[in-house]
Amino acid sequence: MPTENHQIRLAARPRGLPTPDVWEHTTEEVGEPGEGQFLAKVEFLSLDPAMRGWMNEGKSYIPPVEIGEVMRAGAIAEVVASENDSFAVGDHVSFAFGVQEYALSDGSGVTKVDPSVAELPTYLGTLGMPGMTAYFGLLDEGRPVEGETVVVSGAAGAVGSVVGQIAKLKGCRVVGIAGGPQKCAWLTDELGFDAAIDYKADDVKAKLREAAPKGVDVYFDNVGGEILDDVLTQIRRGARIVICGAISQYNATEAVKGPSNYLALLVNRASMKGMVVFDYADRYEQAAREMAGWIAEGKLQTREQVVEGGVEAFPDALLKLFAGENTGKLVLRVA
Amino acid sequence: MPTENHQIRLAARPRGLPTPDVWEHTTEEVGEPGEGQFLAKVEFLSLDPAMRGWMNEGKSYIPPVEIGEVMRAGAIAEVVASENDSFAVGDHVSFAFGVQEYALSDGSGVTKVDPSVAELPTYLGTLGMPGMTAYFGLLDEGRPVEGETVVVSGAAGAVGSVVGQIAKLKGCRVVGIAGGPQKCAWLTDELGFDAAIDYKADDVKAKLREAAPKGVDVYFDNVGGEILDDVLTQIRRGARIVICGAISQYNATEAVKGPSNYLALLVNRASMKGMVVFDYADRYEQAAREMAGWIAEGKLQTREQVVEGGVEAFPDALLKLFAGENTGKLVLRVA
Repeated sequence: MPTENHQIRLAARPRGLPTPDVWEHTTEEVGEPGEGQFLAKVEFLSLDPAMRGWMNEGKSYIPPVEIGEVMRAGAIAEVVASENDSFAVGDHVSFAFGVQEYALSDGSGVTKVDPSVAELPTYLGTLGMPGMTAYFGLLDEGRPVEGETVVVSGAAGAVGSVVGQIAKLKGCRVVGIAGGPQKCAWLTDELGFDAAIDYKADDVKAKLREAAPKGVDVYFDNVGGEILDDVLTQIRRGARIVICGAISQYNATEAVKGPSNYLALLVNRASMKGMVVFDYADRYEQAAREMAGWIAEGKLQTREQVVEGGVEAFPDALLKLFAGENTGKLVLRVA
Repeated sequence: MPTENHQIRLAARPRGLPTPDVWEHTTEEVGEPGEGQFLAKVEFLSLDPAMRGWMNEGKSYIPPVEIGEVMRAGAIAEVVASENDSFAVGDHVSFAFGVQEYALSDGSGVTKVDPSVAELPTYLGTLGMPGMTAYFGLLDEGRPVEGETVVVSGAAGAVGSVVGQIAKLKGCRVVGIAGGPQKCAWLTDELGFDAAIDYKADDVKAKLREAAPKGVDVYFDNVGGEILDDVLTQIRRGARIVICGAISQYNATEAVKGPSNYLALLVNRASMKGMVVFDYADRYEQAAREMAGWIAEGKLQTREQVVEGGVEAFPDALLKLFAGENTGKLVLRVA
């Protein structure tokens, strides 16, 4: 049995990008499961843009991580010891075990994952929170209709890449906005997007006029900032803008840039609506089943970028997200 | 019969507030109605914040007023000569006859108004576009539920004052935001608002916390700018923000101030939706009937502030809106 559990705790609230000093590396003894508990050995950790928000003080859709707490993170783990009849040694499970190597659990909120259906990291991506976010955000909030134009930002990320593919499955014209030629090529050549805009190189407004000549019916926004403003200039009447995230603003040290062009909502009778995936929890299973089916049929591609190095590598790995270095879902291999 | 028709035309597109040089005063001969036409003598002109938008170039929900055109304006007029069987001399009618004293019409789009039901200026206010905007914007887009908190900005204006009163009729807690103690007193003492915030004197956020202790369910926004941002900090889960206008930004010479706090939409799963009253045209009649009933029963108060001076006074009268000088609906008496 292992004896040491390495952990990453939040030591201070960051201002701007999370610098090394906001983290504390701690070591605890690995606990033994009491009655009804099991010991989970973390295999993969999820790296999510939303983590940056959890590090801030104040009211949000989820309580902040407190100073001194193990950093919150979604994880896939293996059950390595169990005094709980529902979880057997060798089971793989999904839960927010946090940035650590081991965790004790009584099983509440924990779901089993099946490595014969998909690779384990996929359960942190397309079959996990990002996939659920894409599925419900697009279908329930964006409500795309066949023939409409769907634009997604952060299109090469874990959420965006799934949004675009589902929109294609629904018969829409799909335009992705991403950073860099490799990501853009992946969207159009591999994932079947109709067009991709490289926001680092292109004039987003000009390219969008070409790529979405009829205007934008659904905009799924993961980035906020200038790109949201650019898309607002080209929405169609009755457009739906889904506010899923704003990665461009999460590390802002000044006031968030609000969308100057928001009055396009008025002119076009359009809506902008925020969504939080947790609200759809009672339908996760159904969505995961449908998406697993699409993956099996080759209709939905899923990509995970695995960073090595264990929990010690977490602080650097998180920064990759904000530098836009990932294509698909970024995960950290722990064991 | 009159011979001269004085008109105000748009001479140049304004930058910022419409200065006198953007207007041209012209005089034409009064025409004679041909077959199927009637001659309308304008009695009252509507002064609307939206007029500022119509003066700008570019695509909007309505084509811009072109340079050299008679300025567009809603009007109440009397039929003074008629070759149209549907309109008799002495009838009072409502239509966007423009900023002029006389207009010929074939009757398309023209509706008759009944001076025995309400004063003529009321047909430019509570029983006209502002009233329709309030009715459909609040009820169809804001969808207030009894017991919820409704906040309205521009609350002492033609739209806002009706929004708040309808929200009270629907059993909501109503908070109005307006400029100056007189307007605020009118809202609470005469119109029955639960609270009023004087944005010129009060700390809007602090006062809103007091006035809407449970948070804001519906925000009907006529002003945009800082006040929109302030309200965003206090929306409740599932809140609906109706974007009806943004008078604080219409004369901006720099980029419109977008709502920095728009990510409150995400955290609260809230929506921000634009509305344009024209979309409800097929239900105007029903709404006007219901509102006329409320007025007759004393449940809905309506107030019009009549400026004298005829069409020549139009340029100055329009500026009163942007200076916040009106309480209730601002109209210009022409004849």
